[in-house]
Amino acid sequence: MSDDDVRHRHRLAVRFSDCDSMGHVNHAVYLSYFEQCRFTWWRQLGSPAGMPGAATVIVHAECDYRAPAHVHDELEIRLRLGSIGSTSVTLLYEIVNVASGVRLAEGKTINVTVDPVSRRAIPVPADTRARLEGG
Amino acid sequence: MSDDDVRHRHRLAVRFSDCDSMGHVNHAVYLSYFEQCRFTWWRQLGSPAGMPGAATVIVHAECDYRAPAHVHDELEIRLRLGSIGSTSVTLLYEIVNVASGVRLAEGKTINVTVDPVSRRAIPVPADTRARLEGG
Amino acid sequence: MSDDDVRHRHRLAVRFSDCDSMGHVNHAVYLSYFEQCRFTWWRQLGSPAGMPGAATVIVHAECDYRAPAHVHDELEIRLRLGSIGSTSVTLLYEIVNVASGVRLAEGKTINVTVDPVSRRAIPVPADTRARLEGG
Amino acid sequence: MSDDDVRHRHRLAVRFSDCDSMGHVNHAVYLSYFEQCRFTWWRQLGSPAGMPGAATVIVHAECDYRAPAHVHDELEIRLRLGSIGSTSVTLLYEIVNVASGVRLAEGKTINVTVDPVSRRAIPVPADTRARLEGG
Repeated sequence: MSDDDVRHRHRLAVRFSDCDSMGHVNHAVYLSYFEQCRFTWWRQLGSPAGMPGAATVIVHAECDYRAPAHVHDELEIRLRLGSIGSTSVTLLYEIVNVASGVRLAEGKTINVTVDPVSRRAIPVPADTRARLEGG
Repeated sequence: MSDDDVRHRHRLAVRFSDCDSMGHVNHAVYLSYFEQCRFTWWRQLGSPAGMPGAATVIVHAECDYRAPAHVHDELEIRLRLGSIGSTSVTLLYEIVNVASGVRLAEGKTINVTVDPVSRRAIPVPADTRARLEGG
Repeated sequence: MSDDDVRHRHRLAVRFSDCDSMGHVNHAVYLSYFEQCRFTWWRQLGSPAGMPGAATVIVHAECDYRAPAHVHDELEIRLRLGSIGSTSVTLLYEIVNVASGVRLAEGKTINVTVDPVSRRAIPVPADTRARLEGG
Repeated sequence: MSDDDVRHRHRLAVRFSDCDSMGHVNHAVYLSYFEQCRFTWWRQLGSPAGMPGAATVIVHAECDYRAPAHVHDELEIRLRLGSIGSTSVTLLYEIVNVASGVRLAEGKTINVTVDPVSRRAIPVPADTRARLEGG
């Protein structure tokens, strides 16, 4: 993926509490980093509490781990819009160590748009699609 | 996958601290549930601090989410041995709500065996393979 | 405090994800253990989502740490009712390693009863007081 | 306490994963914010992995909560040096919402200097004392 595909960049410093007994960031925390990146993106699009114009649930998340991160490391999480399906949005992520430029991880989430009451899948609203594609 | 493939079952109660602002278990926590399941399996195999006879790093983790879990729910995490490659072990998981029997999630991790000092991939030790296949 | 003061005992196994780079349970997690203990107590009193008959906020939490806990340790968190003031309930906790009997920590929280909308302190409802004192 | 007592200021943005089912930062997370503040202070003093020149264990932590924090809030954690005893260092903290200036919480930790092998309390090393008092 090229740099101009990046829709949002979120920077954060690794906290001591992100690290496990191995002395590096626990693998589960990478999903929280992805989460924080999409929430800050959505906030930038005017929707601080979730995807613009839609309730969503995650149906899939994955991460490939390439190199560890340690306490105090400054990380940049980059988000790309993978695809928008009939009832879901696929988001792509990568995590880069800012100081070294090394790519630490890359991942993906599939977020399904749902009816806020029934929690069943509904078509991605046209307004949501427009805001995500424009954002 | 059939029930007789299950190598290990780990039960836990959902903690309030596992849940996020949506009022259910945060998706990242499922990876920690998988982690706890493999650690308790390895412990049962006589290796409380990690995979028997090998240092490992995770290179891939993924989860498919089917239904939410809530505070106080009793969950059973089931582990299957997916495959043992030249330098990696693939583990498969599913999470079931004990009371309802509903399958909430399924996932996978790929754990690479590494040299404890250089952290580079090494062949899965024969002893490790034997203990995992026998366990 | 004597054993007959104990209102509720909650057992849990230390998760790998509870531990930090020092290789033992992170000190902040003890507050989550206390939290889980009071939530399971309240659930036993018929109120799974919080203090019986009252919305609450925590205004104070503290913990004294005496010995570390490690992954796989089975812990018992014991809860005592410290006191019920005009607008607050003080709860006392201790954490014991089940296998060794060693007391690892003791702590306290002060939970203020609040109006669910304004979040301002209100008198502890009589029904809440009765259920906590009887529980 | 006056502003000129502040030894270190650490800023962070509240993550979605810091928040619980109540929709605000979970009370246990405040201890992690304090932790991150003292670790970044120690790092600034030249000791990225812990207190300068000493192994430590926490024997006490406490927090008073005054107002909630929410996802995306920018917080400043301020650290003051409470006192240095024969075998312990008391650190004082407060957390302020940067945008509103409102003080959300204040707290304290007591960190005992220990022998790195036996984990028993030892006198605060003179070099440690000098670096903390000068920092």
